[in-house]
Amino acid sequence: MAVKNQEIVGILKKLPASNKVCSFGSYVKQIAEDDPRKLVHSVKVGLAIAIVSLFYYFEPLFDYEGFGVSSMWAVLTVVVVFEFSVGATLGKGVNRGIATFLAGSLGVAAHKLATFSGSDKLQPIILGLSVFSVASIATFMRFMPKLKVRYDYGILIFILTFSMISVSGYRDHMVLDKAITRATTILIGGAAAILFNVVICPVWAGEDLHNLIATNIEDLGISLEGYGKYFKKLDVKSEEELERTSLEEYKCVINSKASEENLVNFAKWEPHHGKFRYRHPWGQYLKIGDLVRECAIYINALKSELTSCNMTPEGRKRIQEPCTKMSIECGSALKEIAMSMKTMTLYPTTDSHILKAKAAAEKLRSIIKSGGLIEEAELQKLLPSTKIASFMLDLVSNSVE
Amino acid sequence: MAVKNQEIVGILKKLPASNKVCSFGSYVKQIAEDDPRKLVHSVKVGLAIAIVSLFYYFEPLFDYEGFGVSSMWAVLTVVVVFEFSVGATLGKGVNRGIATFLAGSLGVAAHKLATFSGSDKLQPIILGLSVFSVASIATFMRFMPKLKVRYDYGILIFILTFSMISVSGYRDHMVLDKAITRATTILIGGAAAILFNVVICPVWAGEDLHNLIATNIEDLGISLEGYGKYFKKLDVKSEEELERTSLEEYKCVINSKASEENLVNFAKWEPHHGKFRYRHPWGQYLKIGDLVRECAIYINALKSELTSCNMTPEGRKRIQEPCTKMSIECGSALKEIAMSMKTMTLYPTTDSHILKAKAAAEKLRSIIKSGGLIEEAELQKLLPSTKIASFMLDLVSNSVE
Repeated sequence: MAVKNQEIVGILKKLPASNKVCSFGSYVKQIAEDDPRKLVHSVKVGLAIAIVSLFYYFEPLFDYEGFGVSSMWAVLTVVVVFEFSVGATLGKGVNRGIATFLAGSLGVAAHKLATFSGSDKLQPIILGLSVFSVASIATFMRFMPKLKVRYDYGILIFILTFSMISVSGYRDHMVLDKAITRATTILIGGAAAILFNVVICPVWAGEDLHNLIATNIEDLGISLEGYGKYFKKLDVKSEEELERTSLEEYKCVINSKASEENLVNFAKWEPHHGKFRYRHPWGQYLKIGDLVRECAIYINALKSELTSCNMTPEGRKRIQEPCTKMSIECGSALKEIAMSMKTMTLYPTTDSHILKAKAAAEKLRSIIKSGGLIEEAELQKLLPSTKIASFMLDLVSNSVE
Repeated sequence: MAVKNQEIVGILKKLPASNKVCSFGSYVKQIAEDDPRKLVHSVKVGLAIAIVSLFYYFEPLFDYEGFGVSSMWAVLTVVVVFEFSVGATLGKGVNRGIATFLAGSLGVAAHKLATFSGSDKLQPIILGLSVFSVASIATFMRFMPKLKVRYDYGILIFILTFSMISVSGYRDHMVLDKAITRATTILIGGAAAILFNVVICPVWAGEDLHNLIATNIEDLGISLEGYGKYFKKLDVKSEEELERTSLEEYKCVINSKASEENLVNFAKWEPHHGKFRYRHPWGQYLKIGDLVRECAIYINALKSELTSCNMTPEGRKRIQEPCTKMSIECGSALKEIAMSMKTMTLYPTTDSHILKAKAAAEKLRSIIKSGGLIEEAELQKLLPSTKIASFMLDLVSNSVE
């Protein structure tokens, strides 16, 4: 999809200005059609902000002493916390809530300590030093990988709230008031963001992750089946032709690590939803993802092999049958694994595909041993695929159970 | 380095609680030693926040009518905008500044329009609708890849400021005042963040990117030289031994795409610094990075080849000399390219290394044609490296010029 967008941008650049407006429209339409949830998300955000803003607008008209200016924190929280997936929103909301509470308490304490010192000259020094040390230490903590992954936003909000509360120019009792109003309004904003996000067409990061991995496995399967077809017709020679027949589905698999890691981090925040419970073994998906990537790298190597290898027609003919079989069986096995992931049911035929692929691999190995073929290389490329496919099956059946 | 940290975390988990405090200390020490700039950055952030906070603290004591509560926006801006590298800080600062200005103007306009309508009942409807539509459209724009990469933060701030300004419960003239104070305080905060970031030990994303790519190329070179040594001593057989001799330097190269893209985005914001001018061709680095990654994938395939191939000692002997030469010459060429990138001077010997590697490749090719060796595969793995190395040289000399 990212590739598609880049293409569109490329096309946009080449067009004259008069056509640009029209193409921009189709660009927007393209994004919306690729993933309609993006459109729904935009409307959700607009709705949530408008409703919370109007609450802020009406407040000064009420008679009771409301939150006043502080209620803009509710608007701010909604805007900042509202993310695409439920997991990301929950993660940011919880981070913000806990960080505000902790930093607020600590800030009030620091302020009390400074007031307790009595001296008007000492007070700013104590406050400045406390802000300096807390901000420095917290900033350094953001560099710790484990903390950064889950609590980066929380630490940022901690620094923010602490420095604001502790150094606010107000006197004693007002500081406590301020801290409480701020915490309350952020609670309101955070709750509104989470509510709107979960109630109206929620987007679950866990589900996205599950589907991403399944689609990656499916892409590999399609690529491998494409190679099977390539082995079948012996006359394909040029690289372009291979490109067209084998379908380069595996390419985007190689670069999906970052998005997988993000989704896992978000998914960890999500409660029970659909077929996934809270504390679903999300870490396993990373392992499967790594295996799939490894497999894609092998397919990449196989491709460069096929297009550059100087094979004799006879040699090609001898390995044709087992190679075709291995590719197609591996491909079907992978596609079935993907399907069984998507439907969350085990397909009984997958094992037999893998067994057939292994048998073909054995056959190919014996052919190579008997004759002096230079095709060892291709076998080496396909063998790990079989190995990985069967290993992956174990993992997947584990995670399905 | 990330791997190192994970190792330490792993060690931490295994230790009893009594040792944890001590190990945590060494963990912190390890991070600081790995990159002392992180420590300096933390102190910089602490200093900037403390100074801006104290400004906020003292303000109510002044006689003139200052920014009041609004000046906390300055503190907020410093905390949020202050990033590790100059490029990231500038990018966020500029985004925040421009977005606040635009959203402020538009917000005041929306507010004027609503007041102009006269009716007290119509006003909240107009405001609510305008906030809803602006927030929805802007949120949708955040999904456009081109905008997301550079202006994501700006769009977020735009939504935030617009909804706050337009819906603030104040009457006419106060809205304009509010918009102006907000813009001014954010300007102060942003300027403070950028100033502290640039003046005290600045960290340039462009320089980091340059060094990252150079280090990646160097790692490849070290790996290839390791393979050369492996070819030299014929008796290395097991995978573990290969692991030890060949140095798996190339592994982290494969997964560095995300950090390269981030650094490029930051570097684009940076003005002239050191040996890099503004609008340095940063995009070229991405291309070099992709080539290096491709090369690393080939080396990965070569490794699995070497450990699983059933080579006869005679066959091994015949290809030994050209393979050793190719690996070592390619490795030296890559290491020299890395050095010439780091020092920004061209090494005159690099070309000769590549020529020697190419000659060795030709020799290997002729050996294969004459005898029925099954080593085609390894040649295929090394040939692209030569090709890529020479292509990379062109690119590098271009970017150096």
